[in-house]
Amino acid sequence: MIKVFLAGYNGSMGQKAIKMIQANDDFKLVGGLAPSANDSDKNKYQLSNDMKLFNNLSDVNVSADVWVDFTVPSSVYENVKFAIEHGMRPVVGTTGLSDSQLDELKSMAKSHNLGGLIAPNFGLSAVLLMKFAQEAAQYFPDVEIIEMHHDDKKDAPSGTALNTAKLIDKVRPAHEQGADDNVETLDHVRGGDYNGIRIHAVRLPGYVAHEQVLFGGTGEALTIRQDSFDRGSFMNGVKIGIEKVMNISELVVGLENIM
Amino acid sequence: MIKVFLAGYNGSMGQKAIKMIQANDDFKLVGGLAPSANDSDKNKYQLSNDMKLFNNLSDVNVSADVWVDFTVPSSVYENVKFAIEHGMRPVVGTTGLSDSQLDELKSMAKSHNLGGLIAPNFGLSAVLLMKFAQEAAQYFPDVEIIEMHHDDKKDAPSGTALNTAKLIDKVRPAHEQGADDNVETLDHVRGGDYNGIRIHAVRLPGYVAHEQVLFGGTGEALTIRQDSFDRGSFMNGVKIGIEKVMNISELVVGLENIM
Amino acid sequence: MIKVFLAGYNGSMGQKAIKMIQANDDFKLVGGLAPSANDSDKNKYQLSNDMKLFNNLSDVNVSADVWVDFTVPSSVYENVKFAIEHGMRPVVGTTGLSDSQLDELKSMAKSHNLGGLIAPNFGLSAVLLMKFAQEAAQYFPDVEIIEMHHDDKKDAPSGTALNTAKLIDKVRPAHEQGADDNVETLDHVRGGDYNGIRIHAVRLPGYVAHEQVLFGGTGEALTIRQDSFDRGSFMNGVKIGIEKVMNISELVVGLENIM
Amino acid sequence: MIKVFLAGYNGSMGQKAIKMIQANDDFKLVGGLAPSANDSDKNKYQLSNDMKLFNNLSDVNVSADVWVDFTVPSSVYENVKFAIEHGMRPVVGTTGLSDSQLDELKSMAKSHNLGGLIAPNFGLSAVLLMKFAQEAAQYFPDVEIIEMHHDDKKDAPSGTALNTAKLIDKVRPAHEQGADDNVETLDHVRGGDYNGIRIHAVRLPGYVAHEQVLFGGTGEALTIRQDSFDRGSFMNGVKIGIEKVMNISELVVGLENIM
Repeated sequence: MIKVFLAGYNGSMGQKAIKMIQANDDFKLVGGLAPSANDSDKNKYQLSNDMKLFNNLSDVNVSADVWVDFTVPSSVYENVKFAIEHGMRPVVGTTGLSDSQLDELKSMAKSHNLGGLIAPNFGLSAVLLMKFAQEAAQYFPDVEIIEMHHDDKKDAPSGTALNTAKLIDKVRPAHEQGADDNVETLDHVRGGDYNGIRIHAVRLPGYVAHEQVLFGGTGEALTIRQDSFDRGSFMNGVKIGIEKVMNISELVVGLENIM
Repeated sequence: MIKVFLAGYNGSMGQKAIKMIQANDDFKLVGGLAPSANDSDKNKYQLSNDMKLFNNLSDVNVSADVWVDFTVPSSVYENVKFAIEHGMRPVVGTTGLSDSQLDELKSMAKSHNLGGLIAPNFGLSAVLLMKFAQEAAQYFPDVEIIEMHHDDKKDAPSGTALNTAKLIDKVRPAHEQGADDNVETLDHVRGGDYNGIRIHAVRLPGYVAHEQVLFGGTGEALTIRQDSFDRGSFMNGVKIGIEKVMNISELVVGLENIM
Repeated sequence: MIKVFLAGYNGSMGQKAIKMIQANDDFKLVGGLAPSANDSDKNKYQLSNDMKLFNNLSDVNVSADVWVDFTVPSSVYENVKFAIEHGMRPVVGTTGLSDSQLDELKSMAKSHNLGGLIAPNFGLSAVLLMKFAQEAAQYFPDVEIIEMHHDDKKDAPSGTALNTAKLIDKVRPAHEQGADDNVETLDHVRGGDYNGIRIHAVRLPGYVAHEQVLFGGTGEALTIRQDSFDRGSFMNGVKIGIEKVMNISELVVGLENIM
Repeated sequence: MIKVFLAGYNGSMGQKAIKMIQANDDFKLVGGLAPSANDSDKNKYQLSNDMKLFNNLSDVNVSADVWVDFTVPSSVYENVKFAIEHGMRPVVGTTGLSDSQLDELKSMAKSHNLGGLIAPNFGLSAVLLMKFAQEAAQYFPDVEIIEMHHDDKKDAPSGTALNTAKLIDKVRPAHEQGADDNVETLDHVRGGDYNGIRIHAVRLPGYVAHEQVLFGGTGEALTIRQDSFDRGSFMNGVKIGIEKVMNISELVVGLENIM
C-alpha cells in the first residue's frame, strides 16, 4: 500500500488524480493541499473521512510515501522542497521549475536518498513514442516527424514533436538526408528543419493531439504513432510514476527516463 | 472485342501494355509502331503472327478501335492526329502536347465524333484520390495534404499533391483555415501554402510514392490515402481508358474525367 | 432563411441541434416539441422569445420549412406524418421506423411533392467513406474493411462497416478474392466474410469510432479512413440535410443519397 | 576492417550480401562457398581478385572474422560448426537448424568464446516492431495486431504477427481484454485469438508485407507499424549482425536480442 499526498487536489488534473488513486487498490490518499481546501470537499470528491485537507503548506502534518503535485508554477518549488524534507517522494506534473531549482531539488533528493519524478508530459503513448524513436534512429538514421493537432493550437511544432527531434538528434549517426539537389517548387513543403530532421505540423478541426515518427531504410519503413484523444490519458503515467519512484533513489526528470 | 493499335510497343510502358492487352480477352492487339520495329519482336514479346509492326507512321495501314500511345514528346502530336483521321480513338500516356495542340486535337475528335483520352497519370488510386478529395472538400473545407516519396525524388511537392490542391481549390467554399495568430517556433513546419491549403512533402528511403489527403471537421476526420508500390499499376488505368473511350465522343484530358 | 421546427429539442442530440441552428445565419428556429416542454426552457437553452414550445404533437400550430426530429422510436412515425401533412420537410435522426411505415411516408411525401431525409447516420465522414468506397470498388474489386471501436462496444462489426460491405457488394464485379488455397494457422485471423468481403473489428480502450476501407490492385493501394472523435460531428450532417431537403421533392433514406 | 566469408554467395540473398559488403568500407569479402563456385564468378559478381572461392566446405582454407551463411537447410549445420571450429563468428540467415543442433552450436560457441547470430528475420523494421511492441505491452496491456500481405500469400497469420503476439504474451500482465459480453453479429470479425491477443490478417493485391501493432489505453493510443517493400531490406539487418557479433561472446538467436 502506497500512501499518497495530493497537492492541488481540486484542480482539473487533481480531480482526475483523485479518481485514479481511488480506483487503485495499492494506493491510499492520506492528505490534500489547496488554498481553498475545505472539509466539505470530502463529500464533493467522495474522499474518505480520515483523509486530511490543508490550506497552507506549513500546516501539513501527515506523512506519506509519495507527494503528487498538480499545483501552479509559483508554489511548485516550495512544495517539492517540503516534500523531500519530510521524506515524501515527489511526482510532479506542475511546470515552472527553473534549471537551478531543479539542480537544487535533485541534490536534496540525493542527500535524502529519495526517489522522485518531475515530468512535463505524463502521456504514456507520447513518452513511449519518444523512447522508441530515439532507439530506432540508431538503426534508421533517415527520419521525419509529422504532428497533427486541433486548429485551435496556435504554436507549431508541438513540444512532443520538437522533443522527439532533439532526442533523435542526440543519437543518430552523422548523416546527410535526402537528395543533394532538392528543389521546392512550392516554398516550405519540405517542412521545418531541426539539424536535418524535417518536422511537419498539421492543424485541422476534429483532430486532438497526434504524432507520427516515420523512418525509412532500403526497402522498408517503420512508423511509430501516438494519438491523445483525451487528457484523462495522463493518469496512467502518474500511476506509473507513483509506482516507480518507490524503487529509485534520485530525482528523475522525464517519465521516459524511468520506463 | 476491342482492336488495339500500340504506338511505342517496345518501350518500358509499351511492354507492360502488351502484357495487359494479352491478358484481357476483350482486347486484341492488331498493330504496333516503333522506329526500331522488327518482325523478330513478335517472338521477343510473344505477339501473335497476324499482328502488324511498322517503323514509320506513314506506313501504318491497319485499322483499330483504339490507338494506345506510349511514345515520345516529339512524335505524340503527329501520332494522335493520324489516329483520329483514321478513326482510331487515342488513349495517350505520352507527355509533351502543347495547349494549342490539345485544342486542335479536341476539335478534330469532335468533328470525327470520336472518343479519346489524354492522361498524364494512369494510376487509378491517385486518380480516385483526387476525385474523392475534390468531392469531400465541398463538405470539409479544412484540408491538408501529405505526400511521401523516395528520397531520390528531387522536386517537391509531387505533381499529384499539387494537382489535388488545385482541384480542391476550385470547389471549396471561401474559407479561412486555422487559428488567426499561428506562430511557427521552427520555421516552415506548417509546410507549403497553396491558396490556404497546406502541403507537406516527406522524402525517405524505402518509400515509393504515397499521398494522403486529410480532412477535419467538428469531432471527426476523413483521410484518403493512395500508395503506388510499382509502375505496373498504371496498366489498370490504361485498361479502363480503352474501355471508356469506346463510349464517349470527345477527347477528354485526365483519367478522372471519364471515371 | 430556412425556418426549422425541432422535435426533441431538449434531448442530447436536440440540444446539439439547437446550437448548430443558432450558429447558422441561414436557419431560424421557430418551434420545438417535447413532452416536458416548458417556457423556462427558453432561458435554459437561450432560445429566442418568439419561438413556440409544445408538449403535444396535436397542439403544434406553427409552420416551418423543415421538421428536424430527434425523438424516440415510439413517436417518430406520427411526428413525420404530421410534418408532411403540414408541409414541413422532415429531417429525421430518430430510429425505429418499420419498412412499411417508411414506404407509406415516402408515398405521402411524393404526393405532397415534398423533400425529406431519414438518416441512421449523420456523420459526414462515415457517409462520404461509404459513398467513396462504393465508387472505388468498381475499379478495385479487391477490398477489406477494418473498423476500430472503444472496447465498451459489445457488438461487432459496426453498422457502418457492415453497411459499407453491403454497398460494395451491390456494385463490385463478380470476383474471387485471395489465393485459392488459403490456410488459417490460427483460426479466424482472416476475419468475418460478407459475400467475399473480409471485415475485421478491433476493440481497444482509448479508441472512439474509426473505419478503414482498404483497396488493393496491381502495384497500388487505396485507403479511405474516417475517425469519429465526438458525436458533435453529427450536426454537420444535419445542417447539410436541412439545406438539401429544400431542393428535392421526395423522401430519401440515407444522407449519402443526397450528397 | 572486418573480414567476411560468404557461404551461398551466388544465391539470391548471397548476391545482395555481396553488394552490401562491397558498399561498406569497414567490411572485406575474403572468401565464398558454393557447390557451383567458379573463378568466372569473380567477373560476374565484380569480386576482387584476391577473394577465394570454394566448391566444398572441406577445402575452405581462408580465415575470416565473420561467416555469413545464406545456403540451404541441408548444409547449414555443418557450415556453422566448421565456422566456429575455425574461429569465424557465424551470421546465419539459413533456416533448418533443429533445437538440438542449435543447443550444440551454442555450447560450441561458448567454449570457443565466440559471438554469433542465427536470425530467421533480418528485417530491421520487423525486428524493432517486435521489440517495441513487447516493451509497450508492459504499459498498455490492451493490444491487437493487424498484418497485411499480398494475396498470393497462402498462410495467415504471418510469422511476424504470431511472433509479436508470443513476445507480448510473455510480458503483459494477466489481463481480460474487451467487453464481457461481446457479440459477433458476423462470425469471426474479431479475428484470431492468441491467448487473448486478437490478430487480423488482410490479403490484398498490391500490398507487400506490412504489420501494425495497436495499443489502446484510457484516452490514448499507440501504434507501431512496419512496411517491407522489398527483400533488399534484409541486408541492413545482416550488416548490423556482422558488426554486433564482433562484440559478443555467445551465439544469439534472433536479431532483436542483440539490438
